[in-house]
Formats: sequence, C-alpha cells, structure tokens
Amino acid sequence: MLEPLPAPDLLSVLRAIVGERGLLTGADAEPYCQDWRALYRGRTPAVVRPAGTDELAAVVRLCVQRRIPMVPQGGNTSMVGGAVPSEGGEQLVISLARMNRIRDVDPLDLTMVVEAGAPWKAAQDAAAEQGCLLPLSISSEGTAQVGGILSTNAGGNNTLRYGNARDLVLGIEAVLPNGQVLHALRRLRKDNTGYALRHLLVGAEGTLGFITAAVLKLVPQPVQTEVALCAVPSPEAATALFRRCQLNDAASMQAFEYMSGTGMGFVLRHIPGATLPLATPAAHYALVELASTRRDGRLRESLESVLEAGLEAGLVEDAAIAESEAQRQAIWKLREEHAEAQKREGASVKNDVSVPISRVPELIARASAACEALIPGVRPVPFGHLGDGNIHFNLEQPPDWSASDFLARDEEIMHVVNEVVRDLGGSFSAEHGVGRLKPPMMREWRGGAELETMRRIKAALDPAGLMNPGKLFPAS
Amino acid sequence: MLEPLPAPDLLSVLRAIVGERGLLTGADAEPYCQDWRALYRGRTPAVVRPAGTDELAAVVRLCVQRRIPMVPQGGNTSMVGGAVPSEGGEQLVISLARMNRIRDVDPLDLTMVVEAGAPWKAAQDAAAEQGCLLPLSISSEGTAQVGGILSTNAGGNNTLRYGNARDLVLGIEAVLPNGQVLHALRRLRKDNTGYALRHLLVGAEGTLGFITAAVLKLVPQPVQTEVALCAVPSPEAATALFRRCQLNDAASMQAFEYMSGTGMGFVLRHIPGATLPLATPAAHYALVELASTRRDGRLRESLESVLEAGLEAGLVEDAAIAESEAQRQAIWKLREEHAEAQKREGASVKNDVSVPISRVPELIARASAACEALIPGVRPVPFGHLGDGNIHFNLEQPPDWSASDFLARDEEIMHVVNEVVRDLGGSFSAEHGVGRLKPPMMREWRGGAELETMRRIKAALDPAGLMNPGKLFPAS
Repeated sequence: MLEPLPAPDLLSVLRAIVGERGLLTGADAEPYCQDWRALYRGRTPAVVRPAGTDELAAVVRLCVQRRIPMVPQGGNTSMVGGAVPSEGGEQLVISLARMNRIRDVDPLDLTMVVEAGAPWKAAQDAAAEQGCLLPLSISSEGTAQVGGILSTNAGGNNTLRYGNARDLVLGIEAVLPNGQVLHALRRLRKDNTGYALRHLLVGAEGTLGFITAAVLKLVPQPVQTEVALCAVPSPEAATALFRRCQLNDAASMQAFEYMSGTGMGFVLRHIPGATLPLATPAAHYALVELASTRRDGRLRESLESVLEAGLEAGLVEDAAIAESEAQRQAIWKLREEHAEAQKREGASVKNDVSVPISRVPELIARASAACEALIPGVRPVPFGHLGDGNIHFNLEQPPDWSASDFLARDEEIMHVVNEVVRDLGGSFSAEHGVGRLKPPMMREWRGGAELETMRRIKAALDPAGLMNPGKLFPAS
Repeated sequence: MLEPLPAPDLLSVLRAIVGERGLLTGADAEPYCQDWRALYRGRTPAVVRPAGTDELAAVVRLCVQRRIPMVPQGGNTSMVGGAVPSEGGEQLVISLARMNRIRDVDPLDLTMVVEAGAPWKAAQDAAAEQGCLLPLSISSEGTAQVGGILSTNAGGNNTLRYGNARDLVLGIEAVLPNGQVLHALRRLRKDNTGYALRHLLVGAEGTLGFITAAVLKLVPQPVQTEVALCAVPSPEAATALFRRCQLNDAASMQAFEYMSGTGMGFVLRHIPGATLPLATPAAHYALVELASTRRDGRLRESLESVLEAGLEAGLVEDAAIAESEAQRQAIWKLREEHAEAQKREGASVKNDVSVPISRVPELIARASAACEALIPGVRPVPFGHLGDGNIHFNLEQPPDWSASDFLARDEEIMHVVNEVVRDLGGSFSAEHGVGRLKPPMMREWRGGAELETMRRIKAALDPAGLMNPGKLFPAS
C-alpha cells in the first residue's frame, strides 16, 4: 500500500484516469460538498466524474492504494446528508452523473437496464416510451439518480403496490471497495445461485461500493386511474377504510395516504391555488388511488362502491372523486405541498418513522400526546403513507414561540416520538436511511448481533473503511 | 477453542441442552441422512431437534467451541441434496421441526409470524383461517418447512404475481454461525436502517446460520379464480399470449405455464384420469390462471376477451376455460403430473433453468436441437413457468435405449442445455438452488468478483466454516 499523495499529485494521477472533463475542483466542486437540506458543508480535494465503469474501477483501485476515502454521489438529494464529504477535506467525492445511459428497455421482459447516473425521471420516461411504468415515484425524482435511489432503497407513494426500490432490482453491476467489478446484470425473475449480493448493495448507502448499473423491473402502464379525497373521523377510521379497500381490490391499490386536519389547514392557508374539494374541513383525511391496466372502465365503480360502504359504516364522512386529470393533480397537490406549507407556517421538526399498519392510529395518538406534554401548544402534523405504516410525524412550532427556541428542542421532540415508535415495534427511519444524520441511533436500535453482523460484512468487503466513511455506522 | 469431543461425550453434552426428546441417534437418525431424491446417503453422530431459539443457540455455541460442522434441516425436500450430512459422519444434523409455532396472523397488517419448523402448508392454513393468502405454492408444501423454503428462496407457480420466497419476508429471527441470535422480526413495510441482513440469509442455503422465524407478507384471499388451457401453435405464440394477458390485466395474473405436446402426451398416456379438455392434441400448450379479490364476477369475461383476441391473432388454436373447481383442478393436474408421467415413460434428465422471458422460445428451440444432435431420438420435454422465464428443460430417453445407457450421458446433456442457457443470459438454477449437487457450476457461472465476494461474506460470518459445509460453494 502506498502513502497518501499530496493533493497536486493526486489531481494529476486522477486526471490521467478520467481526463479533464472528469475532474472538478475549487468552486466547481462546492455544490457537491453541501447537502440540499444544508445540514452539512464539507470539503473535498476534487469531484471525480468517471465516464464509465472501467474508469470508476481504476479510480477506486487508486484510492485503495493511496488510502483515500471515497464518497459516492448521485443527485445529492439525501434527506440525511448521505452523499456529502466530511469537513476534513480528505474525502474524494465520486459523482456517477456521467454514467447515465439507458442501456435497454424491454416491454416483453418488463425490464430495463439503466446506469447509476441517470436521473430517475429519465428512466421513468424511457420506460413510458415503451408503454411501461417504472413504478417508484418520489418528489425528488427529477434530480435523484438511479444509483442513489437504489443505494438508499427509496420508497415513495406507490410502495404499497410495487414495493421499495429494492423490490424493483433484478440484477446489478457494481464496483466493489477493492476495485473489482461485480458483473451481475441478469434480467432473471428466478435465479437461486448463491448469496443475493444485489440486496446487500441496495440500501447500503454507498458503504459497500458503487452501484454502477441495474436491471429494473417494469410493469405495464396503467390505463385507468381513480383518485378520491375522503374526510374521515379518525386515524382508526382511515385504517379501517384502508382494510376495506384492500379487500375490495387489493391488486388495484396504488396509494393510500393519511393527512391530518392541521396539515391540510396549513396547505389551504399557505399554498396558492390549493382548495378543498369537500364541503367542510375535517379533522382527518385519506387519499385513495386505484390504478389498473384493465380497459373495462369499471375502476370508478369499484372506488365508488368501497367509499359508499365506508360512508354507511361511518368510516367516511365525505368524499370527492377526481373527474379529470386536473382534479387528480389538484388532490395530489394537497398531499404533496404538506412540506412546503409547514415551512411557511413556521419551524418544524421532522420524523420519518414506520410502524406496523395496524398501529398507525396508536402512533398518532400517543406521539401527539407525548409531544403536547413536552411542549404545550406544539402542533402535530402527522401525514404520509398509511398503507405502508410510514408516517411523517412532523411537529410544527407553537404559534407564539420563536423558531429558534422551538428548534432548540428538536432532539427532545425526536426522542419522545421515537420512544413511542420503538414501543410499537417501529423504525426510526422508514424511507430516508441513516446517512450522516442518524448513525448514533443505529447503536441503540440495531445494536447487538444486528449491528455487529453489519460491521463484519463491512470489514470483509471494505477492510480499510474507505467507502463513504462516517455514514450509516456509529463511531465504534 | 476446545478439542472435538468423542461421540459419547458429545451426545451427553447435547442431551443436557436439548433433552432426551431433542436427540435422535442410530436408526432414528437415518431418514435425516438421505435426501428424498436419494442422490446422497450421509452419516451423522446425531440429529439434534432443539425446542426453541435459545436451545438452538446453545447447540450452535457448543458446536463452535468443539468445531463440529452443522447441517440445518427442515422438511428435507431439497432437489439438490442441500439438507443432508456428508458421508464422513462428523456433521451434526440440526432439525428445526420442533420449532413450528405460528406465532401470529394479522389480517390488517397482512403479516404472519411463523417459526422455521412449521410446514409451509400449516402456515398457509393459518393464514387462510384469517381470510388471507400466503402466496407461494410449491408441490412439496405439505412437507417443506418455512425455514427451508426461505433458506432456498423457493419459487413455484405464482412467482410472476407474488415473487419468490424472498419477496415475502419482512422480518427475520436467526441464530448466526457464532451462536448469536439476530432479533429482527420487524413487521414493517419500510425500514431503511442498515444492511438488509434478512436478504443475505434468505437463499443462503443454511451456510450463514439458521433462520428460526420470519415475518411473512400475506395478501387478501382471492375470491374469483379463472383457469384456461390453451392449445398454441408455438412457444413464440405462448410468449406473445403471455404479453397480451399482461396488457389485459397484469395485476390479476396468477400463473402462466407452458407445456410441450410431448410432455402432455406422456401425461395423457400414463396418468389415470388425465383427459385433455380440448378437441385435439396440440404441439404446445399454455395454462393461464387469473385471480382477484374483486367481487364483480367479471374475471371470466376478462379471460375470455384476451383468449378471443388471441384466437383472432392466431396465437391460440383452441382453449378450454374451467367451469368448476373440479375442472380447474383437472387442468392443473395436467401440469402437475408432468414429473410423474415422465418417470413412467422412462428415464429423464432434469434441468431447472431460467432465461429472460423473451428468450424462452429460443431456449426451447436451440436446446432441443442441441440435445437431438447429441442423442438422436431423445425427447425434449420443456415445461414450466413461462411467465418467470423458468423452464424445466427435461429430456426423456429415446424409446429404444436403456435407462442406464441414457443416464450415463446426463452430464453431457446438462452441458449442452446449459451452454444455450448461458448464451441467452440465463441461470443454471432457477428455483432449486445449488446444494451439494451443483457447487462445481458456481465457479464457472458465478466466478470472479461474485464468488469471491460471497466467500468473503461467508468467512466473515462463519470463519471456521461450520455451517452446512460442502453446500453452495465449490471446493477452493
């Protein structure tokens, strides 16, 4: 193993591998050093942008020889600072943005082969051109890249039907921490030949190597979609309505979202053009979306019948079904503007948690009470993917507090929420991962055999600890 | 680390952990030493049957101390000798059959918690009692146990809709090779907190520890099912029909199976009560099953319309839709008796292979030609899960050959089939795994970075190589 190179030599050696276009330094590198939530601002000797897998492998081998830590970066949309370098200035940022080809879309196999640097939206569009749907949908999909979405096992609105990012991956190509290339881009639905290495890389947040390309599962594009916004009397009613929708036509369920009256109130107050398609505001809401490839025009009937039964059973107080694509988008906007509306209302503390679906009402009741006991006047804004048990349990500041006074209490708030989540058998990070923000929680929540086994695997594949250091694992 | 114990001492130490009921020796142990295909007959000092996870963990810790190799065993239905000890007599068989409780079924969460030793059928029945379907279905489900099905990532008839065993696992409990218990029985749909250890254990064929319990995903029980048997002119037509069925109603597709006229001929000749529900025998057949939780009674209409369109397009020559549950079972019997009918016809060589779905027709054409060139008069009997690209490419002996002469050529036959499979980007083991039968193929097919990474993980978790030695990995 060679000694670390002084910076000027390092740059010239890197330039010999990736060329002038493949190297950014100085001001050009700065956008890569800060996460989009602006939680962290790091430094890097350079941003390396290899043009292909072989160049990347050569860069990794150099870094191993010279003991240079590497930070993989895709679209840099992490919610937990997972893709930026540390403040120390010794970590090399490696952006896969130039490795962005859509290699293949096959409508019969219902697969696509796509490189890590392609924005997710570009992959979605390529699939749509062939009449296929690349299912996963998240709000950052225009910027987030395939490699980042897979490395963080992203979720989103349609997980209840199609699963998380992990569930879409049939095959993978990767550069391992020792610079070897893992060639496993198999487009097979069944292949029982050894350990599922792709599932180790998916969700590893770049700590076990670079995903460079993947074979993703597609589905035929739905031709009918129906969306309803329902006023419901309680989270219990929302959960019972979800159950009825499943029994009615589980295979057509595309999304089932919960929103509180508080959060909806913020949206209606702060977001221009947001209007409630119901007669009166409610204490709780459910958004139901069905979609199908069937051409029988009966999806509307199916949605109406389950909502009517819900009305009769007292689970639904009022409901509006979108009559047009514009109305569909208007209903979804009420859901998607929750983050922006909270920002305009004041400071908020965010928790991306999950519990078993049946425990969502208890989560909302107990975590709300705990937060209100901690900070009288705080306004709980729970919303999110009820159909996955994934609630964004956010807390809006009391109206008469300053933002800074409120945010000074963020760790206490997260703690009381997480105590409830833990008691209900939940997780402290449903979708967003661990990144740099939450490693300390790993020791407490995943300690013992689980964390020890993760560390053994990490040490076996990356003995020098060069891949994305400081992320996912707590300091040992 | 202590020295290996002489056998009598070993038994008394084991008895102190698991009690008299937990230990089988002599003739009682013999059924555990032979696989059901009778490919292997091994020996063991004892069969240990722990009553629970803590007892199992104590046994594992003893084995680590005394360097005793362990062979996990469930229902012992492996197709590749994956669960039996070697001939050397030093490997301890550890049966999880007594750890067979259904801990919980939750119809709202659509999850069940089940221990490894429960027969899959028992888990299915417990789910059905709550109106839920545990999707995966394989012919050995009455005997195969949960732990074995997960450890081999079993497939089956409904994979195209619900995925393989892997896709059903939300949480896991396991005893690791060092005797630590991994407690990760989380019933969460979203949980991004570190490496997906469950996916490493699923499909690891017992080489990384013992799966002791799992949280499995359920779906609501379908209330409509429709099955058709279609005569089709070619594998290309079958594949095109599959595509049309997907576009028609992908979410209702429950199975899409291919059968050759040759195999169907054997079934009609040898299986009592098997009758063809079509006017005349055909060269190729497709079996289509749709299922839905919808109560609209329109699934039949949907199936009829896609088959009529197939008739008009020349993809279907004739079709029979089951009018009753008895007819449904009669159609499925034609498919399920393929193995038995081949046995009665004579000797056969079996290949469980997969290719991308679009390449199935080419697989059948090229592999048939290659086998006929190798052995004039050999009768190819391709059949299986076309919808997953998983074909059981079996070869029946020429009528005028002896079984032993034919079987003497089995390696040559497998080789020519696999050459085609490999050229089409396929896998040498779709469903059955590697076990003891196929480790030599791992070097050739999964060599380089892939096998090396698997070995690193194995060494990290099981440094003494005590877990199921001789399985999955080729000798190094």
